[in-house]
Amino acid sequence: MAVSTLEDLFHETLKDIYNGEKQIIKALPKMAKKTESPRLKKAFETHRAQSETQAERLERVFELMDKTPRGKTCEAIEGLLAEGDEVASDVEAGAVRDAGLIAAAQAVEHYEIARYGALAAWADQLGMKEAAKLLRQTLDEEKKTDELLNDIALGMVNQKAA
Amino acid sequence: MAVSTLEDLFHETLKDIYNGEKQIIKALPKMAKKTESPRLKKAFETHRAQSETQAERLERVFELMDKTPRGKTCEAIEGLLAEGDEVASDVEAGAVRDAGLIAAAQAVEHYEIARYGALAAWADQLGMKEAAKLLRQTLDEEKKTDELLNDIALGMVNQKAA
Repeated sequence: MAVSTLEDLFHETLKDIYNGEKQIIKALPKMAKKTESPRLKKAFETHRAQSETQAERLERVFELMDKTPRGKTCEAIEGLLAEGDEVASDVEAGAVRDAGLIAAAQAVEHYEIARYGALAAWADQLGMKEAAKLLRQTLDEEKKTDELLNDIALGMVNQKAA
Repeated sequence: MAVSTLEDLFHETLKDIYNGEKQIIKALPKMAKKTESPRLKKAFETHRAQSETQAERLERVFELMDKTPRGKTCEAIEGLLAEGDEVASDVEAGAVRDAGLIAAAQAVEHYEIARYGALAAWADQLGMKEAAKLLRQTLDEEKKTDELLNDIALGMVNQKAA
């Protein structure tokens, strides 16, 4: 058994989401290209830049643990992004595809909200104050991105799609 | 292109989450066996029964669309459940494993929150009132399950794990 302490579990989960962020950074420009809504395109592009900062925060958390930043394949993000790819390839371009892309992106955001929420709670428990603060910064950003996507969907895309 | 209308997208996403619920119904008893916390075991068992009702609600939504209930492999749930399996096999039994299982289950809940949220919004847009109501019932249950898991983590498991 490789994992026996909460610190080990924290470290393993950190590697998982670090790889997840890297996958997201690669996927977002492809999603931006597949949308027709300028507002959604901009949201994907902004979130890509934000994800780079989020990956850097994770690197800082690795450092705080005296560990080398290193990912391990995050199967959950892989599956979630595969669903986004499917929308991009199976749905005709336009508002319906945009509605599907938003939903796929929100599923990714929700995964991150769950992950960063758990990591921040574990950092508190481990007395890692700076790490907890960094993880909560990202958590807040993910929640705001989810709200922005909701806003884009309800404000226009869904209506156009119907 | 198989999907060109919002109704098609709704139907495809319904198939996806229907398969997801079926996968979750199979996975929860295994997760319940791997935990040492009686409260967490009970939460997993209760959520299994709830997931069966949720699958039945989806069957009703298929019916309302004059479609046969049919799933298609939900890769996202597959990836999310694979992470839960990994925790169960890589983490020593006890509070640390329980903390990991809770986090994995919360990631699944968040996926469902994102999916049912999108489906309910699309049902509104399509004027499918009964479907929207059924989907929101499930959405509320998923949010409550996420809160319950949070409560179990913060109330005891994380502290025992540290």
